Amino acid sequence: MEIIRTVREMQRWALEEKRKGRFIGFVPTMGCLHEGHLSLVKLARSRSDLVVLSIFVNPIQFLPGEDFSRYPRPVERDESLCLESGVDVLFYPDSAQMYAPDHSVIIEETLLSRGLCGATRSGHFKGVTTVVAKLFNIVIPDVAVFGQKDAQQLRVIQRMIRDLNIPVEIIPGPIVREPDGLAMSSRNRYLTPAERQDALCLRRALDHVEKCIQEGERDVETLRKELAGVLDRVPAVRVEYIEFVDDETLQPVKRVERLVLVALAIRIGLTRLIDNTVLMTRQD
Amino acid sequence: MEIIRTVREMQRWALEEKRKGRFIGFVPTMGCLHEGHLSLVKLARSRSDLVVLSIFVNPIQFLPGEDFSRYPRPVERDESLCLESGVDVLFYPDSAQMYAPDHSVIIEETLLSRGLCGATRSGHFKGVTTVVAKLFNIVIPDVAVFGQKDAQQLRVIQRMIRDLNIPVEIIPGPIVREPDGLAMSSRNRYLTPAERQDALCLRRALDHVEKCIQEGERDVETLRKELAGVLDRVPAVRVEYIEFVDDETLQPVKRVERLVLVALAIRIGLTRLIDNTVLMTRQD
Repeated sequence: MEIIRTVREMQRWALEEKRKGRFIGFVPTMGCLHEGHLSLVKLARSRSDLVVLSIFVNPIQFLPGEDFSRYPRPVERDESLCLESGVDVLFYPDSAQMYAPDHSVIIEETLLSRGLCGATRSGHFKGVTTVVAKLFNIVIPDVAVFGQKDAQQLRVIQRMIRDLNIPVEIIPGPIVREPDGLAMSSRNRYLTPAERQDALCLRRALDHVEKCIQEGERDVETLRKELAGVLDRVPAVRVEYIEFVDDETLQPVKRVERLVLVALAIRIGLTRLIDNTVLMTRQD
Repeated sequence: MEIIRTVREMQRWALEEKRKGRFIGFVPTMGCLHEGHLSLVKLARSRSDLVVLSIFVNPIQFLPGEDFSRYPRPVERDESLCLESGVDVLFYPDSAQMYAPDHSVIIEETLLSRGLCGATRSGHFKGVTTVVAKLFNIVIPDVAVFGQKDAQQLRVIQRMIRDLNIPVEIIPGPIVREPDGLAMSSRNRYLTPAERQDALCLRRALDHVEKCIQEGERDVETLRKELAGVLDRVPAVRVEYIEFVDDETLQPVKRVERLVLVALAIRIGLTRLIDNTVLMTRQD
């Protein structure tokens, strides 16, 4: 495995491999790798000759007061995991490599990024689209894999790909969960053992909504109350949002027809957690 | 010469040629081609195996009330000129190809695009950076040529290239002038014969400033007065701006040291014209 730390070297490597006709698969991450990330590496591998994984904790997608400085950075463990999972190149730039002091170009998605996490994390997706476009230009992948746990991020990036005609195919990676159902996230390690137990309400709430759907319920207000009921039973949970939105446009819906994304964001103590599922119904 | 009208086909062509190891040179234009554009084609040709020229009158870089609808579109003449000048592919998309009805991603440069034309044409450069990034992703060039007549545009694009790590080399094309000194522009055809004569004041003014520089003048306020004096002698001319800025940062300067861009924008009748020169001084 090669470790590349400069933009120039990464870009040169990519251009050279592409000239040789190699297909590059890309997994952009913020490090603190877990099984979820490694499943994305597998997906990338299945669709390409060479897999690049990037680790970059992107300062411009964190808002003031968020966890940028304390975001976990277990460098050596991440390197071992990359090596073990067959990553060909680990791209590991520092902030100075990625942002000039007078950096002045941003990419903004203005429709899909307004609601859900965008409503409370204003400016977050601007940071995400900008860094992802930069990474695409540096790694020059044919395919890139993004986890479905960050449901809105995935759709915002797909919209950027479409609207800027970026010649990269996005492969969504299914959510990987702990045996008890908690969606894997680098931020899970912030949780105390008690909070870790409380966090299971996310999956319980989504399971409950899926059960309601199977029983024929289609009204979003009813489903929302059912879902909120599950979360409310855990006193430590503060709900940030419970949203039922069209899977493509991310606009709120009143009934569950075709594909509807149910997305949740909660806080437990100092930790913000998200989870989601896509409700599929036969067309009524 | 191949004429390609769809994004999909253009991108496929580009990816295929790149896999064969071909270098693609790119000249993005809004059509109504003149000698200035053809000089850019020559530059592109000198640095690549294949030259793509695009013609697209980009709606989102025109402000309300500007000349989008009346912008000249002499389709057949443009095609002949491309053919004669050895363009390999003419990329000729329509607006529906370039912008989905729910297009929602923009690229914005926030420092260099504020002054000069950006001060009066708010939002113009957002349209330029967005469409140029799109075209780069569609044509996937190795080099792209932009004329120095649009001095601010050139620098904003170079900044975008730097800040988004776009793997395209920008080649600046020198201003091409009519025999009498008027910088070539598709908009010159808006001018009546009398206005056409009046427009020569632009070059006269720049020549005069260069003469002042040769005679040792370095103070920008003095130079600005000298320059304004030349323009003021033509009653039909309304000055939009006269700016002396650092050639790289586009920030106003007080003295001419090293590279200073003098940029002018005027209106004559309904027509807006720009011109510029870079003042070079031995370091005093």
